[in-house]
Amino acid sequence: MTSTIGQVIKCKAAVCWSAGESLSIEDIEVAPPKAHEVRIKILYTGICHTDEYTRSGKDPEGLFPVILGHEGGGIVESIGEGVTNVAPGDHVIPLYTAECRECKFCKSGKTNLCGKVRATQGQGLMPDSTSRFTCKGKPVHHFMGTSTFSQYTVVADVSVVAVNKTAPLDKVCLLGCGITTAWGAVVKQQGIKGSNVAVFGCGAIGLGVISTAALVGASRIIAVDTNPGKEAWSIKMGATEFVDPAQLPEGKRVQDHLVEITDGGLDFTFDATGNVHVMRAALEACHKGWGVSTVIGVAAAGQEISTRPFQLVTGRTWRGTAFGGVKGRTELPGLVEDYLQGNLKIDEYVTHHRTFAEINEGFHDMHGGDCIRCVVDMS
Amino acid sequence: MTSTIGQVIKCKAAVCWSAGESLSIEDIEVAPPKAHEVRIKILYTGICHTDEYTRSGKDPEGLFPVILGHEGGGIVESIGEGVTNVAPGDHVIPLYTAECRECKFCKSGKTNLCGKVRATQGQGLMPDSTSRFTCKGKPVHHFMGTSTFSQYTVVADVSVVAVNKTAPLDKVCLLGCGITTAWGAVVKQQGIKGSNVAVFGCGAIGLGVISTAALVGASRIIAVDTNPGKEAWSIKMGATEFVDPAQLPEGKRVQDHLVEITDGGLDFTFDATGNVHVMRAALEACHKGWGVSTVIGVAAAGQEISTRPFQLVTGRTWRGTAFGGVKGRTELPGLVEDYLQGNLKIDEYVTHHRTFAEINEGFHDMHGGDCIRCVVDMS
Repeated sequence: MTSTIGQVIKCKAAVCWSAGESLSIEDIEVAPPKAHEVRIKILYTGICHTDEYTRSGKDPEGLFPVILGHEGGGIVESIGEGVTNVAPGDHVIPLYTAECRECKFCKSGKTNLCGKVRATQGQGLMPDSTSRFTCKGKPVHHFMGTSTFSQYTVVADVSVVAVNKTAPLDKVCLLGCGITTAWGAVVKQQGIKGSNVAVFGCGAIGLGVISTAALVGASRIIAVDTNPGKEAWSIKMGATEFVDPAQLPEGKRVQDHLVEITDGGLDFTFDATGNVHVMRAALEACHKGWGVSTVIGVAAAGQEISTRPFQLVTGRTWRGTAFGGVKGRTELPGLVEDYLQGNLKIDEYVTHHRTFAEINEGFHDMHGGDCIRCVVDMS
Repeated sequence: MTSTIGQVIKCKAAVCWSAGESLSIEDIEVAPPKAHEVRIKILYTGICHTDEYTRSGKDPEGLFPVILGHEGGGIVESIGEGVTNVAPGDHVIPLYTAECRECKFCKSGKTNLCGKVRATQGQGLMPDSTSRFTCKGKPVHHFMGTSTFSQYTVVADVSVVAVNKTAPLDKVCLLGCGITTAWGAVVKQQGIKGSNVAVFGCGAIGLGVISTAALVGASRIIAVDTNPGKEAWSIKMGATEFVDPAQLPEGKRVQDHLVEITDGGLDFTFDATGNVHVMRAALEACHKGWGVSTVIGVAAAGQEISTRPFQLVTGRTWRGTAFGGVKGRTELPGLVEDYLQGNLKIDEYVTHHRTFAEINEGFHDMHGGDCIRCVVDMS
């Protein structure tokens, strides 16, 4: 086999040419990694609602043409000058939340929101403000610094982490977004042990929150979803009960119901829906005096959350989390070990499999109520 | 002097007969305290915006006729059966936030929002659902469990605390609300030391926040007020700089200006205005990743706070506090000692004095930009 190092690689990628269009499998060229960049052969990728949000055109900051995808697993093909954290052959997970360990954010000890490549990542470009992808002679945008819907991608070295090679990449690829986000949202919140918790939305994130809350010892875990099919799922993952807001008496708000059945409200609530009305309900379902509500879901552009400030003045806290507050380079290897030792569920989330050629069907799967995660085989 | 113990006391009180009316000094009868109640001779009272909010009729839960006032200082005249925490002759401060030490809230260790007398207090009544005040043969409502605009008042024993008798009641009466609220909002927030802080609104509460932030070692304290007259006040109390949003270039939002001059935003912000638009600005002026915004001000009925959930997902926290999170019976005696030892400012807040007969003028004083606190001599 001829070495590809330093060469342009021709491979297939799912290109979204413009807002609202289905993805199109195209032959593309992937330039070699520049200094502090890593080229990765992607083997598997999950499909997440954030991909769909941009594909659909609802994301006002969406840039096209683009190669979407941010929940991938692969093997390092080559590295650019100065890369020390990964080497060719390493099994890696690309990180849409970088970790440079040098910026104000990384050094603060208070957040995982690294600022190093944020600006260019938002512009769909590598840190030198150019793209490594070309299709039909035209540059194609990167997405979230990861672009895992390509057989080869290039990422910044601060945006990738090597993990245990014995871990199946068709499973641990999901640590690139959903499962890690859910896990972090719970474990980085003090006080969950022995508390009552409500989780709004039982998709992959919500189920991950339920599973992690059970793991850390929440005493009562109420799953909330308008899809009754999620009851069995939520119980399987560790919920102690299930509430379907659509089944409440007419005019009964879910937050009022939850406050009633918990003698004052929840110690902790999590929104995993991205719906701003649900976010409000999650806050208002919190116990007066100490309830904490965490927004995990990403709302559509322009939408706003609201509540009466009295909710806050009487002791509720409204916060949020991105990628679960997890520092990817530091923490993902440990999560992979947890998975390998049976302490972190991942297999349970994979309900659907698709070939790369079927990636658009994978998007359809996601909209079905029976899909938690669809994993795409990129080979 | 004949003992008044067990007798109805006739005295003067400022009665608000109906929403929007000025207060009327009336002869009233004050019944003796029942079990677990305390009758107090009020010597001094502050006037606070919450009194005005109910007087004005803007408070939809306002009940009339009523004796307002919740920032008072006085001497215990007599106690009902079972009262053990105060004795006749004690100098006391009535507490609109009770502390029973027995309810779920008090025992939680997480909040100062005692639940013991909340329901009846909200109904303008004593815990047995009756009033101790009669005027012209008609019962008059209590207010916030305190009703300090009367020469004698009756409060629940869980709603009063004895303090050092050497402390001047015309000063420490202000610990009944504003100064304590401001102090608690800061000292109960971890991490203020060495941080940058912005305080929106430079009334008594805002100035108290500034003063306390300086006391605990905030590195930079930005005071924000549209009244330029507050610049000197805020600097006097410890602010390092002053921003008048009205003086910014047209279209420049104060939160954007603050984010610019602080290289990313504030570590902590406090709203002491009660204006929901300012509350939003205070949140959005917070630093991405870790900024915490605390709502102290009470908004008008029906008003709501809003923001894009992205503000929370990217690491800002929105919280609130009532009475500064302070447990009155446990903490006020210490605050009085702090004052006596020169470690807590109170005198500086008293800009206006009024006789009881002039109490309506005191309300007018409050609306003036040069008034921080008006103290009324009830004799």
